[in-house]
Formats: sequence, structure tokens, C-alpha cells
Amino acid sequence: MDIESLKDGILQGQRRALAKAITLSESTRADHQAEAQHLLTALLPHTGKAIRLGFTGTPGVGKSTFIEAFGTYLTEQGLKVAVLAIDPSSTLNGGSILGDKTRMEQLSRNPKAFIRPSPSGGSLGGVARRTREALLMCEAAGYDVILIETVGVGQSEVAVAEMVDMFLLLLSPGGGDDLQGIKRGIMELADLVIVNKADGDLKPAAKRAAADYSLALHLMRPKSPNWTAQVCLASALKGTGLEEIWQAVGDYRDKLTGSGELAANRAEQAVSWMWSEIHDQLVDRFREHLPEKLEEMEQAVRDGKQPPTAAARTLLEAFLAG
Amino acid sequence: MDIESLKDGILQGQRRALAKAITLSESTRADHQAEAQHLLTALLPHTGKAIRLGFTGTPGVGKSTFIEAFGTYLTEQGLKVAVLAIDPSSTLNGGSILGDKTRMEQLSRNPKAFIRPSPSGGSLGGVARRTREALLMCEAAGYDVILIETVGVGQSEVAVAEMVDMFLLLLSPGGGDDLQGIKRGIMELADLVIVNKADGDLKPAAKRAAADYSLALHLMRPKSPNWTAQVCLASALKGTGLEEIWQAVGDYRDKLTGSGELAANRAEQAVSWMWSEIHDQLVDRFREHLPEKLEEMEQAVRDGKQPPTAAARTLLEAFLAG
Repeated sequence: MDIESLKDGILQGQRRALAKAITLSESTRADHQAEAQHLLTALLPHTGKAIRLGFTGTPGVGKSTFIEAFGTYLTEQGLKVAVLAIDPSSTLNGGSILGDKTRMEQLSRNPKAFIRPSPSGGSLGGVARRTREALLMCEAAGYDVILIETVGVGQSEVAVAEMVDMFLLLLSPGGGDDLQGIKRGIMELADLVIVNKADGDLKPAAKRAAADYSLALHLMRPKSPNWTAQVCLASALKGTGLEEIWQAVGDYRDKLTGSGELAANRAEQAVSWMWSEIHDQLVDRFREHLPEKLEEMEQAVRDGKQPPTAAARTLLEAFLAG
Repeated sequence: MDIESLKDGILQGQRRALAKAITLSESTRADHQAEAQHLLTALLPHTGKAIRLGFTGTPGVGKSTFIEAFGTYLTEQGLKVAVLAIDPSSTLNGGSILGDKTRMEQLSRNPKAFIRPSPSGGSLGGVARRTREALLMCEAAGYDVILIETVGVGQSEVAVAEMVDMFLLLLSPGGGDDLQGIKRGIMELADLVIVNKADGDLKPAAKRAAADYSLALHLMRPKSPNWTAQVCLASALKGTGLEEIWQAVGDYRDKLTGSGELAANRAEQAVSWMWSEIHDQLVDRFREHLPEKLEEMEQAVRDGKQPPTAAARTLLEAFLAG
């Protein structure tokens, strides 16, 4: 593949070049991986200008309707918006929910928006790496807002929180009871809580829920010394509250940029990413290297015939000697 | 060191031999480590007969008073009790709280009890490994109940839950409000919740708190298909409730042994332990191997001059080639 022209295409904001580059970085072929890293190194000086938003919500809260409305609102302000998804449970054939383009019909046809489904298959670490790389490529292509949606289960929210500047949590007007639907610890990740469906008959309930959530947020230790998590009301259906949300995002960005926290967070995130790559690849190489002896040792440990530490040492010596 | 006579001493239940062996396994010297692994391999067939209990509680709940009372009760039933602690924050000189023997004055002078403070210093992984090895050695020395207390911060409760058969959580009669004092996720680890200080004026509050905790436990997904977490009332001061707790432990053990779950859990714990050893040691060797290049690369990633994945690859190639 001609990496040089791919790079130029991305820097000119060509959607096809961007899509092709993301596909390249998702390939498991070793030569494709080398090319993708080469490309990414060349693009790196052109990254970092977007605001990176993580996004999750309880099931049934209207996440895709909200992203469609919010994304459309942003493009109307003249901004370019990229929507990525992270879903470790998606498979090559099954695809992620975002893969179903009809879910965001309007936004997917918007020339100022770029929507990309979750990279398929593999471990959370692998899916997260490919999403992070897609994020950097979108930045190089000039997108102003990168929205990373978590659609998966397990630890994907934490993985998303570790690759974005700000984490948004979409909740329904159910109030305190509704918190049972979200996984423990997710509330602590939120920099901004959005109560959706604040329209019509649900408006009073949404207001009460917002008060409940505010109280819950106040009981938690703030993530940042420069920001207190806020609660906004919105209606994706009516398109209300979107301006206030975008103002809160801008306010957050200003405060964390001014204090240097945003840049420091990004630098730490990059270093953690490097280390998780090192961990994953060390263990991968280790696993590839001695499958037979490994199974035998694992069984001996399982059967209580070998102490785990002694077994680990034997396997490590074999790995490092080979 | 004469490993053979150390082994014989431990199998005869000699406290001095046991203490010496644990000290050997805590040494960072490579020859000591090799000897400790040799010893542990020889002891392994004699391990596994004790019940392994993990133990934590909110600050101020009277954890050491409770362990003293419970441990003494168990020795009065003719059982031998070992109390270990895990505290990644303890240092060589500072020592852990359990190192202060006066904390459990009665139990520490009891010939049927063995108390060992937390191994000092190092990462949680290292402290956990040494505690696990001490656990196996205590089993080989014929202790019937191994109580592992967590005194540290952070993830030590999870580490303890991963090395025991049953996890006990000690709470005060404060009720729901009191749960704010314990870290999130700890309640889910509990197989048995003990409300301490259920005596005198606090008795009604303790009963109400027990009802609150029961409700909270019912809202959570059970850890085991064979056991529903229970709440017991106790007073370490008056020595009440200890029999009921020991009965609940026996009941738990019977149910999980009968269903094969206890043995399966232990086998899985041993394999996880082997893998965490492999992870830790791979990363340790990696860090030792290329300190100079590592710092340089880390800085380049921090400064946004190198993509994290590319940096990880470069470092890995250097490590595996060297």
C-alpha cells in the first residue's frame, strides 16, 4: 500500500483515505501492522487538536438517537464530527450495533460526519488499541470532535475513559433506581451526566432524576481538581439541551487546558497505552512460544502438583532461553 | 540452609521451622528464592486441608479485637489457627499493624495460634505471592484455619479474595451509611457479613444494620450457585456470635465441598497465581533489561513524538533480540 498517498489523503480530510487507513490498522497481517505504525508515526504531529469525548448510557436510554441529534447539532455549528465505537463482544460477521448504519441514518449521510463501527473481535486490549489508533487518524483528518461510544459489556467503559478527555454518561429519567442498570463504578467516571428524554410527560421526572444524580455526584470524590461533574437535561427527540451540553464540554475543555491537566492526562494516557501494549505483547509471545510445556505446567498447577511460582519460573526460563 | 530438616520441622508442626521457612520465602536473594521454591514443592502434597478465610472491615470496626476473640474461640474448640496479614503499604521498618503483637496480646501467646505480620514492601503482586506461600506453609504445618487479614489500601481485598475459600466482611452497626466507609465492590466479595459491636446500647442499631446489609446482599448477584451471602451479629467484646459464625463457615465449606466448587476454585486460583507470576516476572525482566532505551521511548511517547504501539514494538524487539 502507498502509505505516502494515504497520509496525504488523510491530511486533506479525504474520507476514503481515512477509512482505508483505519482498515489497515485493524488488519492482523504483520506487514499491514508495520505499514499502519509507519503511517501513524507520520500522522502523529497532526493529531491532538480535537476534543475526545467518551460516551455511554443505560440500555434503552436512546444512545444512538442522542448521538444522532448531538452529532447533527455539532455539524450545524460548522464542526466535523467522528463517531467511533468500542465493543469487544462484536465479531467479524455479527458486527457492532454501530455497524448498522440505519441506526444513525441522518448522521451517516452527513458530509461533516464520519461514523465507524467497533473493530471486531479480539480482546478488549486489542479492540481498544485499534479504536485509539482510529481516534488519532480522525484527528489527523481534521475532525474537531471525536465521540467514542461504548456498546459492549465488561470493562469497555473504563477502556474508553482511558482514551478520552471527557466522559459523558447518558441516563434516563428513572432517577436513583435507574442507577441499578449501570455497572458499578461507571458513575465515578462521568464528567458530565445527561438526563435524556426530558420532554413531555417525562419532564418532571427528568428534573427529579437530575437532582438525584447531582446528589450522588456530590458524594463522590471529584476526578479532577479543576472540574466538578455536572448534570444536564436533554431531549434527543426534541433537540433540546444540546447547546448547554456543548457549552459544558467547552467549559470543561477550557478549565483543563488552562490548568495543563488536559495535556498531562493525554501524556499519561499515551504512556499507559504503551505499557499495556508491552504487557499484552509479552504475554502473547510467551503463549505462542511454549504451548506444549505450558499446558503441561498449567495442569500440574491445577492438580496441586507444582507450586504456581515454581511453575512460572520454569516456564520463564524456557521462554527466555529459547 | 538445610531444606530437608526445615521441611521435617514444618510437617511436625514446629513453629520455629515454619517462621524460618516463611522468612526464607520473603527473602529477595535468588538462592533463597530457589530454596523456598524447592521447599514449597516438597510441602505441596501436605497442603490443602485447612479452611482459608479472608477478612476485612471498615476502619474502627474492631478488626483486631474480633480476630483475637474469634481466633481464641477456635483454639478452644481444639483447632490450630494461623493469622496472616496482607498490606502492600507496610515497609521494612514501619511494619504492618499486625507486626505490633500487643494488638492481639492473648492470641499471640496462645500455643495453638500462629500470627505473622504482612510481608513488607514491594508491589501488591509480590506481597500477595509471599502471603500465598506462607498460607501453604501454615497448612503443611497442620493449621486448621488460616485467617488472612487485609490491612492495606487499594486492591488488597481483591487480592485476598483471590487466595481464600471464603471472604468475611466485618461491619459496624452504622447501617447503610456505614457502607460509605468501605470501598466500592468489597460488599460483592463477601460470603459472610458480620455486624460487630452487637452488644449493650448498640444492639438495636446492630439488628437494624444487619437487616440493611441483608437487603443490600439480596440485590447483588450471588458469587456462588451453592451459597447465598449471610449476615451474622457478633460482639467481639462479649464473645457472642462466634459460634454462629463458625457454624456458617462450616456450612459454607460443606456446601462448596459437596458440589466440588471449593476444589475447582482452588485449582483456578492456583492457575491465576501462576499467570500473575508470569506477567509480573516478564515485565520485571523487561524493565531490568533496557532501562536506558525505555526511558527515552517513554519520553517520546509522553511528548507525542512516538505512537505508543510503535514504541512498544521497538522496545519488544530490542528485548527479545537481547
